[in-house]
Amino acid sequence: MSQTNLRESSLSEFESAIAVTRHSESAFTAEVDGDWSVAGAVNGGYLLGIIAQTLRLNSPNAPDPLVLSTYYVGPSQGGVADITTRMIREGRSSATFAVDLAQSGAPKITALATMGNLAGLPEDVATTAIPPELPEPDQCINVAEAPGDFVKSAPLIKRYDIRLDPDTAGFAAGRPSGRGLLQGWIRLADGTEPDALSLLAFLDAFPPVMFDLGHFGWAPTMELTAHLRAVPAPGWIKVKLYTRNIAGGMFEEDCELWDSAGRLVAQSRQLARQPRG
Amino acid sequence: MSQTNLRESSLSEFESAIAVTRHSESAFTAEVDGDWSVAGAVNGGYLLGIIAQTLRLNSPNAPDPLVLSTYYVGPSQGGVADITTRMIREGRSSATFAVDLAQSGAPKITALATMGNLAGLPEDVATTAIPPELPEPDQCINVAEAPGDFVKSAPLIKRYDIRLDPDTAGFAAGRPSGRGLLQGWIRLADGTEPDALSLLAFLDAFPPVMFDLGHFGWAPTMELTAHLRAVPAPGWIKVKLYTRNIAGGMFEEDCELWDSAGRLVAQSRQLARQPRG
Repeated sequence: MSQTNLRESSLSEFESAIAVTRHSESAFTAEVDGDWSVAGAVNGGYLLGIIAQTLRLNSPNAPDPLVLSTYYVGPSQGGVADITTRMIREGRSSATFAVDLAQSGAPKITALATMGNLAGLPEDVATTAIPPELPEPDQCINVAEAPGDFVKSAPLIKRYDIRLDPDTAGFAAGRPSGRGLLQGWIRLADGTEPDALSLLAFLDAFPPVMFDLGHFGWAPTMELTAHLRAVPAPGWIKVKLYTRNIAGGMFEEDCELWDSAGRLVAQSRQLARQPRG
Repeated sequence: MSQTNLRESSLSEFESAIAVTRHSESAFTAEVDGDWSVAGAVNGGYLLGIIAQTLRLNSPNAPDPLVLSTYYVGPSQGGVADITTRMIREGRSSATFAVDLAQSGAPKITALATMGNLAGLPEDVATTAIPPELPEPDQCINVAEAPGDFVKSAPLIKRYDIRLDPDTAGFAAGRPSGRGLLQGWIRLADGTEPDALSLLAFLDAFPPVMFDLGHFGWAPTMELTAHLRAVPAPGWIKVKLYTRNIAGGMFEEDCELWDSAGRLVAQSRQLARQPRG
């Protein structure tokens, strides 16, 4: 546990880890928590939480990212991050911001977001997408029970409770399906119910979809755009991750998050570089 | 035809319309051409061309947007636009930039892009997505032959040669399918072969996918992220446009562009506000 977590123990582990300190209208710092790392780099989904938390301080009346586009221009490490924001335009019920995050003077993230109020959106739903059919969580594969060396190199795994659908977890036994599909369940490991900001983290918390195609190397995200569409109901979140266009040394990875009420609460697409492995 | 088009008649209509003048390292102007408008607002896809052309001037060795995320914060009009760019990070073979476009001092677009060189990417393709099956272009519905009032309010239509698959064009006869799917063919009306920048325009050139759900009002784009994955082969481009998550007064619209060689050369997803109609 980092110092921040000890200081702010009334917060959940995730809330503590994305805490941001304001220094002026547009200047912030965060203590990036290395416990949210995989293979030596801080996880991109966790960093989305820091970006969104920073924007919340700028936008109290429109506290949720309706859409957030993040470009990862360098791998982040545990330690201080300097964050600057710039308001592009403020509307009646939404506002658009630019955000930059640097560590030791080196740019790590540049992002754009339109903030709004998810709780204030109209209730109409006409979604045609269908949630994935999954075995119950206790019938799925608990990622935290993966072989010890893997978990040691990926402390991120202990931040979540992830259960993979056995039908899409063949990669763990050396039998990737080749479909480019991973499905399963996720919740925060400390039992905190999902909210808008933890949804952002969930969008990039699963193993890379390329595992299901037999490519196990690191697949650095170039860009990830997330749409948040509703406040999630309490309970497990269903995750569906897939890729359909692997070409030119890059692939897209689409993620859907479904809440316990059966709503498609978040969608993301990222462009990533193909692992060399 | 605008003055710009007459001045630079060796260029295609699209190339002339996205011409940009450089005033300093980071300051540019463009003459936004009102002939690329629908219902009184300049088309977002055409504006992507202006953004990308500006970035090309900043990034001659990495001339193509591999990924471009654009936030439309106000409707653009024909006339001068002031564009500023900022380099975020330059890598070995790619560079990331921020771009802002304003008219008469009012912000209209803010964008991020990572530029690269499509022609220099590895040749490997492992795409699992399947191109749409379409009748030949001359068996499809020519949008330019739509009723006169419609074309009059949408001069954009004359910039393209768009042929809609009759199976997804029921909306034109008052019988939208309700699937949230539009498919067809596109090319530039003046016969110019497709390139990286015209692909960007094609991603937002079709009628809104909400037409197939019986909603005919204007659906303003909040954000659009485009991935360019290959230089297109000459010939018609196949377009597939669909939506799966209509909720909270917003919907996502996914677009795929397939070239005549059967490659998925571009993908986009936008978040838009639901039409009131």
